[in-house]
Amino acid sequence: MEEPGALMARSIFGVDPLDDFAVLVADCIWEHCRNLSDIEIEAKIGLLIDRNTNERLRLPVYTETVVDAKQLGLRFESNMTMEQHRCFNQLLNHVVAFTASMPPEERVTYRHQREVDYFYDERIPGSGNVVHLRVTRDAVTEQIKPGGVVAKKRIADINVYAPNRPFDYRISINTETPMPPPREGNEPTFVREKDRLSYTHQNINVDLTQVLLPNRVRAPDLSQPREPVHELEVEIRNTVDLMQHAHYYRGQNNSATQDWTPFEDMIMILLNNVRLLIRYVRCKPRD
Amino acid sequence: MEEPGALMARSIFGVDPLDDFAVLVADCIWEHCRNLSDIEIEAKIGLLIDRNTNERLRLPVYTETVVDAKQLGLRFESNMTMEQHRCFNQLLNHVVAFTASMPPEERVTYRHQREVDYFYDERIPGSGNVVHLRVTRDAVTEQIKPGGVVAKKRIADINVYAPNRPFDYRISINTETPMPPPREGNEPTFVREKDRLSYTHQNINVDLTQVLLPNRVRAPDLSQPREPVHELEVEIRNTVDLMQHAHYYRGQNNSATQDWTPFEDMIMILLNNVRLLIRYVRCKPRD
Repeated sequence: MEEPGALMARSIFGVDPLDDFAVLVADCIWEHCRNLSDIEIEAKIGLLIDRNTNERLRLPVYTETVVDAKQLGLRFESNMTMEQHRCFNQLLNHVVAFTASMPPEERVTYRHQREVDYFYDERIPGSGNVVHLRVTRDAVTEQIKPGGVVAKKRIADINVYAPNRPFDYRISINTETPMPPPREGNEPTFVREKDRLSYTHQNINVDLTQVLLPNRVRAPDLSQPREPVHELEVEIRNTVDLMQHAHYYRGQNNSATQDWTPFEDMIMILLNNVRLLIRYVRCKPRD
Repeated sequence: MEEPGALMARSIFGVDPLDDFAVLVADCIWEHCRNLSDIEIEAKIGLLIDRNTNERLRLPVYTETVVDAKQLGLRFESNMTMEQHRCFNQLLNHVVAFTASMPPEERVTYRHQREVDYFYDERIPGSGNVVHLRVTRDAVTEQIKPGGVVAKKRIADINVYAPNRPFDYRISINTETPMPPPREGNEPTFVREKDRLSYTHQNINVDLTQVLLPNRVRAPDLSQPREPVHELEVEIRNTVDLMQHAHYYRGQNNSATQDWTPFEDMIMILLNNVRLLIRYVRCKPRD
C-alpha cells in the first residue's frame, strides 16, 4: 500500500473545485440582498411536504439537492416531534458543556427566552395601505424587546431535500424592517408564544423554540387544544457584516464570482451547522 | 467589516461535515468491490437520457445529485460533439504544457494510442457457457497489448445528474478479468477502433477517445457511414492500492465509516477531476 498524503494532488488542475451547493446559496443571497438592509438569513429544519399527498417529498435521488418547490408543489413544514426537540436540546447542551472550558471565542453559550409575538394589521396614516407588524414582548415583563417592532417581508427561499436524513431544510431570506409601535387601541390579529433556547457561537445562532401557535384573538376556538410546534433555526447573527464581505468581494464586477471568499465561507458555515445538527441528532424520525 | 479568518470555526461542533456525496460513492465502491479483484473504476462524461423522450433528463433540482436511473427510466450516453472533444483536448494539452516544468510527480503527461478492440463469444471447453472476451491489439503492429485479453463484467453504476452543466456523468464499477486468448478460428462478433489520448497524473488517467463504433463483422452494413463517438473517461489507475486503503480503514468493523480517510480522499480526487473538467471546458453544449 503506497503512502498517500502530501503528494496526492487535488486534481490535474492542482485545486479542489468550488463547492457548487454553497456557491448557489451565496449567489442567491447576493442577488437578492445586495440592495437591501435589515436582512435576516436563517435555515429552518423540517420536512418538504408534497401538497398532493400531504406526505414528505420523495424524489428518485440519493444525495442532498436544492429543489424547485413551486414546480414540485411543495410546502415546508417547520416542525418536529417533542422527542426530536428533546434530542436536539440534549445535543446542544452537550456542546455547551463540551466547549465551556475553551477560550471565550470558541464557546457555545445559551440563554433561555420566553417571548410573545403580537401580530397587527396597521393602517398607514394618509393611505389605504396596511402593513403587518410583529411586536415581540418579554413574556414576563410584557415590555417590548429592543428592536421588537418590525415589518417582516419574505424575500426568497432555498429548499433543500435531504434523502436518507430525517429532516429537509429551508434557507429563508427575509427583511425585518424596524417600525414604530402600532397605534393605541389596535388589537392584534393573533398572538404566538415562544419558549426559546438560543445557542450562540461566533456569528451563528441556533434557536430551539417551542411555539404555541396562533390563537386567533378575535375568534378563539377554545375547544381545540393548542398543540405546540417545535422549531429549530440556524441563523446568521450579523448579516450586515456578511453583506459587507459580499460587497467587498463581489461588488467590483457585480456578478457571481469564481473565487472562494470569506462571503462564501460564511454561507458554508451556516450549511455546516445545519447539516451537522441533522446528522448528529440521534432520534426516531417522525412517522 | 470584521476580519474573518482563523477565529471563524467551521461549525458549533468545530468541524466541517463529511462530504455526503463522496461518502456515498465510497460506500458504494466499498460494498461492491470489497471481495473482488481486477477492479476498474472510471467516470464517463456524457448525458443522462430519458428513454421516453429521448432527450436529456430534466429534474426540478438546482444542484448536482446522484439519481435512480432505473426508476427514472434513464440511459447514459457517453458521447459528445467533435467540437466538445476538441475543447477538452485543448484544455488538457494546456494542463500538460502548464505542468511540464513542474517536478515529475506534479506533471500531467500524455500519450497517443491507436488500438483495436475485438470482441469474441468464447465457448468454455467442457461446458455450454459462453464468455465475452475483449482482445485489445495495437492498431499498427496488430500485437495483443499486455493484459489485453479480458472478460469485462459490469458491477454497478452511479449516475450523476448535473443541472446547469453541459454534461452529466456516470461512475462505473467493472471487473476486467485477465483471460487466455480466444481459440484460433473464432471470429470476432464485432470490432471497435480507438484513437485515444491518455493523460496521466498520479493515480488518475484522463482518456479522451475517438471510437469508431462496432462494425458488425458478420453482417457489415457498408451503406451506413461509421460515425465516430467521442468519449471522455476519468479512471483510477491503481485500484489495488485504492482497495488496500479501503480494507485498511474500513475492514475493522466492515461497515460504512464516519471518518474521512485516504480512501474517501482518493474518491474525492476522482470527483474533483470530473467536476473540474466539466466546469473548465468552454464550448457550445450539444443541441
